[in-house]
Amino acid sequence: MKFVLAPDSFKNALRSPEVCAALTDGIRMAQPEAEILAIPLADGGEGTVRAAALAAEGVLEQYETSGPLGAPLTAETARLPGGVAVVEMASAAGLELLSPDGCAPLEATTFGVGLLLRQLLDSGCRDFVIGLGGSATTDGGAGMLQALGARFYDDAGRLLPEGIGGGGLSAIRRADLSGLLPELAASRIRIASDVTNPLTGPQGAAAVFAPQKGASAAEAELLDTGLRHYAALFGDDGSRPGDGAAGGMGFALRKLLHGRPESGAELLLELAGFDRRVVGADFVITGEGRSDSQSAAGKLCVTVARRAARAGVPTILCSGSLGPGSELLETEFAACFSCSIGPEPLEEALAATRERLTRFSRNLTRLLTSNPSR
Amino acid sequence: MKFVLAPDSFKNALRSPEVCAALTDGIRMAQPEAEILAIPLADGGEGTVRAAALAAEGVLEQYETSGPLGAPLTAETARLPGGVAVVEMASAAGLELLSPDGCAPLEATTFGVGLLLRQLLDSGCRDFVIGLGGSATTDGGAGMLQALGARFYDDAGRLLPEGIGGGGLSAIRRADLSGLLPELAASRIRIASDVTNPLTGPQGAAAVFAPQKGASAAEAELLDTGLRHYAALFGDDGSRPGDGAAGGMGFALRKLLHGRPESGAELLLELAGFDRRVVGADFVITGEGRSDSQSAAGKLCVTVARRAARAGVPTILCSGSLGPGSELLETEFAACFSCSIGPEPLEEALAATRERLTRFSRNLTRLLTSNPSR
Repeated sequence: MKFVLAPDSFKNALRSPEVCAALTDGIRMAQPEAEILAIPLADGGEGTVRAAALAAEGVLEQYETSGPLGAPLTAETARLPGGVAVVEMASAAGLELLSPDGCAPLEATTFGVGLLLRQLLDSGCRDFVIGLGGSATTDGGAGMLQALGARFYDDAGRLLPEGIGGGGLSAIRRADLSGLLPELAASRIRIASDVTNPLTGPQGAAAVFAPQKGASAAEAELLDTGLRHYAALFGDDGSRPGDGAAGGMGFALRKLLHGRPESGAELLLELAGFDRRVVGADFVITGEGRSDSQSAAGKLCVTVARRAARAGVPTILCSGSLGPGSELLETEFAACFSCSIGPEPLEEALAATRERLTRFSRNLTRLLTSNPSR
Repeated sequence: MKFVLAPDSFKNALRSPEVCAALTDGIRMAQPEAEILAIPLADGGEGTVRAAALAAEGVLEQYETSGPLGAPLTAETARLPGGVAVVEMASAAGLELLSPDGCAPLEATTFGVGLLLRQLLDSGCRDFVIGLGGSATTDGGAGMLQALGARFYDDAGRLLPEGIGGGGLSAIRRADLSGLLPELAASRIRIASDVTNPLTGPQGAAAVFAPQKGASAAEAELLDTGLRHYAALFGDDGSRPGDGAAGGMGFALRKLLHGRPESGAELLLELAGFDRRVVGADFVITGEGRSDSQSAAGKLCVTVARRAARAGVPTILCSGSLGPGSELLETEFAACFSCSIGPEPLEEALAATRERLTRFSRNLTRLLTSNPSR
């Protein structure tokens, strides 16, 4: 039998490569000779680089850069066959890089992301996939632009320092993009994100996400004002869906660096060559931590199932938990299961996720091979 | 596809006939034309009569009799094709017939069970399956014997009144069985029980089970003394495994009425014609509330799987919960699953058991029919 494993991460429990490993263990216990293709997935957020490297058989690379508050750090990227570089903005500007009481919503900057891209450009890369998600920043990508050659000036015509944060956007009087690295114009930038929020307004990057990054109500308002001002500098009203991703970095990448926003899920499947490699499989297994009515709205597992169905391959959903409304998902999958072994506290289930997945896939495989007479 | 459904009851949630109904609903949603054979099971305890009636296509009958403390009640029995009568001792002497503060461990009697058997004998029945379990009594079956014609006398040679309880056993000086209904000698009595406790001693009916029936430590000791004395009247030392079932009614049935103790599980499967009817099925589905290492010790689900395996049919275990040690069961089944949909409190899972079973069987059936190319 041939299985394709294409799970999302199980939030708060396992990253998608580990989910693949757990499922693989179980299948092998039941059928040592099974052919297994592991395509761990991610939606552009954290874990995207490692998932892409594994799924598309790429290599991991390390670059020195700086974090959201300027501290030096080493960020990991993936280089895929064909030369595509996969970058997570969170690797240099992620909220997880700060301690819980070290949040600085006004100061946090995407400058380090720009440094990272600069080194990749220097290495000859012209094809980028940039995963947005998990950001500590609300700078509209201004810091990144600075690292790539943009210059911002204040009312008095003074050059604003590098590493601007969201709190400094309102101070920009003039933006000069003429210094942007010329290699950028020759590059293809694909933006992996499933966020549809606009840059500004009540559904914007500041109003919706800044509070999660430590902003008070007043600070969120200040950040929204800054983003409005910043968008206006480039003749934009800040209303386009998706531009609010990663503290507004979606805006800078799309509008100013000609990036193309794509569904993170679709992009990962494409990078992994899913459509080609799923052909001839008996079953696809996908899953996520918790499947509910939101999952039906184009999320990763459903995307997997639909693409597999085009190749005539049935997809089994195995999630940690099947939440309210998850019955609606059944039309998308050959079958939907939880890997749960019974009622228990969430913490215990999370801690045992790996073991449960192995157990489920072992039993599933035994079942699927139990009646050879059929 | 042909399915045989042979589940045990899900304790504290659903009786086995309802489990079959829930599983049937799910299978039909996925495959309306599926052939489904429902053989709900029981171990001799409560639910045995209804399960046997459904599993073996028998009819239910009602008889007027009396409860453990003499109150009149209507007890239900099953009459199977071929004339076998299935009786639960608990229907006339069960703990559930008393309110929690109405327990009377010394007075409770099996007299009503004897009245029930007497009516069945009067109706012409000569083939009995008597399910032991759930008793309120510790009378060694003495009350039942009285209803069937036995007479007990005290030291002064006075006839003891009918409906003796465990507390009265020590008063018996002489037992006269010459009045037992002669039809009993021409009857076959099979005892459905999975209890292996002896009549007396530290593992006996009084020591182990009387406390659950409301007995204090002193009362349990008094009951044990009574059972010893009672056994000795019939030249027995009270040590035989199984005689302690249902407050010692196992002893009376085996020793004095020539009943044959059999595994409740095996007996039910036999009554249902399981071995014959499972032939040609694609899958058997069994299950119980909670499967753990105890389930491996010859319990119902494993018995089902072994008998199905002899007919070449794989068995799927679907239980409410897979407890510690349940991995060891995997060698017995084609696959083991929980119908759980994720971490949650036990109470919620119990309340939703029917819905969960339907959902599981629906998805299972969809899975098993999802790859017709195989």
